[in-house]
Amino acid sequence: MDGKILTLAGGVGGSKLVLGLANIIDKNNLQIIVNTGDDDLFHGLHVSPDLDTVMYTLAGLANPETGWGMAHETFNLLDMLKRYQAETWFNLGDHDLATHIRRTQLLREGKSLSEVTLELCSSIGIGCQIAPMSDQKVTTVLETSSGTLRMQEYFVKHQCQPIVNKVEYVGSETAEPSRAFDESLNGAMATIFCPSNPFLSLGPILSIPTVKHKLSNLKNRIAVSPIIGGKAIRGPASKLMTELGYESSAAQVAYQYKGICDVFIIAEEDVHLSPVILEMGIEPLVGPILMNTLEDKINLAEFIVSQFND
Amino acid sequence: MDGKILTLAGGVGGSKLVLGLANIIDKNNLQIIVNTGDDDLFHGLHVSPDLDTVMYTLAGLANPETGWGMAHETFNLLDMLKRYQAETWFNLGDHDLATHIRRTQLLREGKSLSEVTLELCSSIGIGCQIAPMSDQKVTTVLETSSGTLRMQEYFVKHQCQPIVNKVEYVGSETAEPSRAFDESLNGAMATIFCPSNPFLSLGPILSIPTVKHKLSNLKNRIAVSPIIGGKAIRGPASKLMTELGYESSAAQVAYQYKGICDVFIIAEEDVHLSPVILEMGIEPLVGPILMNTLEDKINLAEFIVSQFND
Repeated sequence: MDGKILTLAGGVGGSKLVLGLANIIDKNNLQIIVNTGDDDLFHGLHVSPDLDTVMYTLAGLANPETGWGMAHETFNLLDMLKRYQAETWFNLGDHDLATHIRRTQLLREGKSLSEVTLELCSSIGIGCQIAPMSDQKVTTVLETSSGTLRMQEYFVKHQCQPIVNKVEYVGSETAEPSRAFDESLNGAMATIFCPSNPFLSLGPILSIPTVKHKLSNLKNRIAVSPIIGGKAIRGPASKLMTELGYESSAAQVAYQYKGICDVFIIAEEDVHLSPVILEMGIEPLVGPILMNTLEDKINLAEFIVSQFND
Repeated sequence: MDGKILTLAGGVGGSKLVLGLANIIDKNNLQIIVNTGDDDLFHGLHVSPDLDTVMYTLAGLANPETGWGMAHETFNLLDMLKRYQAETWFNLGDHDLATHIRRTQLLREGKSLSEVTLELCSSIGIGCQIAPMSDQKVTTVLETSSGTLRMQEYFVKHQCQPIVNKVEYVGSETAEPSRAFDESLNGAMATIFCPSNPFLSLGPILSIPTVKHKLSNLKNRIAVSPIIGGKAIRGPASKLMTELGYESSAAQVAYQYKGICDVFIIAEEDVHLSPVILEMGIEPLVGPILMNTLEDKINLAEFIVSQFND
């Protein structure tokens, strides 16, 4: 066991807690592993929506209103792409596009996504360690009432409207955890599951071979519910879980982490679910999981860290 | 002979006359062939500086102050690329970058540069036919006092400061004229050499195998001097010609087109060069070659067209 705190994150929900953690944990010890199941090509550019959201958040560049994209953003390039009759349903700002152009170029030069992420983060002054879940391509694909959709198609183009029958992580079976992820899996002193969508954000991370097995050997594994009173704090988690035939509840999220989670933090509203969660071998714990202000984020981070045992 | 008017153009100088011509010639008959020796990759994107300048000019999108780039342009993406420590000496605006992103994507999809150019032009409402000189890569390379430089390195990064010893068109020997170019070469009713740099803009076009030979069989071949009184109207033509050991004069430009040019239009100031030009088998003709206003451009275009014989 080293001092590393492994944090598994998706996009906006994940980045909120990550920001709280980055404010209280020594940057050298905070290893953030981000979902790349949403990664996609737009206009030939490699876009990593969740990596971008976490990066922009930690660099203080994020749009505080949306949670994704950059603050003070302009969309001149996209306007021009529209004139060229390109498909422009995926919103890409001018500053944001610099990230995708740079990432694509560095990947084409033969660097891994981990190396590229490190380079981008260092350029914009991010001290903590952010890495993709894998350097291989894993694509979250949804079988829906509107056909087979990739994540951003479902999320942005179709606004989460189609009914989802199945979620798959294509490429996952042959992917490996990125080196930073694997190192943390081999001895992190604690693991935090951010309040991200268990199927669309943390699901892809957990689908990579060896990940669940290695997590089962760690301790201080703490998850935060993205659901309060049966409703997702944000995003389509609740609708999606129902469509997949699951109950939309914090307990159901906890169940997804059965065997790899010690403590599951829920809202006061969900205290009645405690016995069910306990039966899974997970300790339910009421905590301040709703994060709006920076103070909320730091509060939750401190609450989580206070649960760690040596 | 068909009704096609083949126009050979470089960047800013070329685009001025092209705009004049587009105002008076039936768009279906105006075939503009543009130098692509300046084409280069920036941030992994295929930039065609001269094609862009001609396109933006004809679409009414060009920056009237610089002659290149777009009007009302912003540079937010480039600012962000700077933060990512990318090399940003080549000015790329946000709107302009849409062109490069779209072109690069369409090329990667397997389209030829001719096809891509056609598609871009049609999207922004350009009716006349613009095509690259070739669909193969031809790169203008300069041997200089600062080492071997590609065109934009020489032009933008080094601001034309290095002394040029040699100009080469790398890839030219195996390149072919684009289909549109070849069709015009096989029977245009007239050919216009825009007042572009004879070595850096029209040189690459003329270096492609078969081009000079086919031009030698055409008639109504009219060139416009880019030099007045020994000085280039714009750009480094004068400095470059001197460095290459040539006299910096309209006559020297005419000499570059010997055997493929019938009429060479010069400024009043250069009327004393008429005997020398005549000796080359080219008819010197004083005309309104200085183009500032749109009226000037149309005037010169009309003057040229009035020289055509059946």
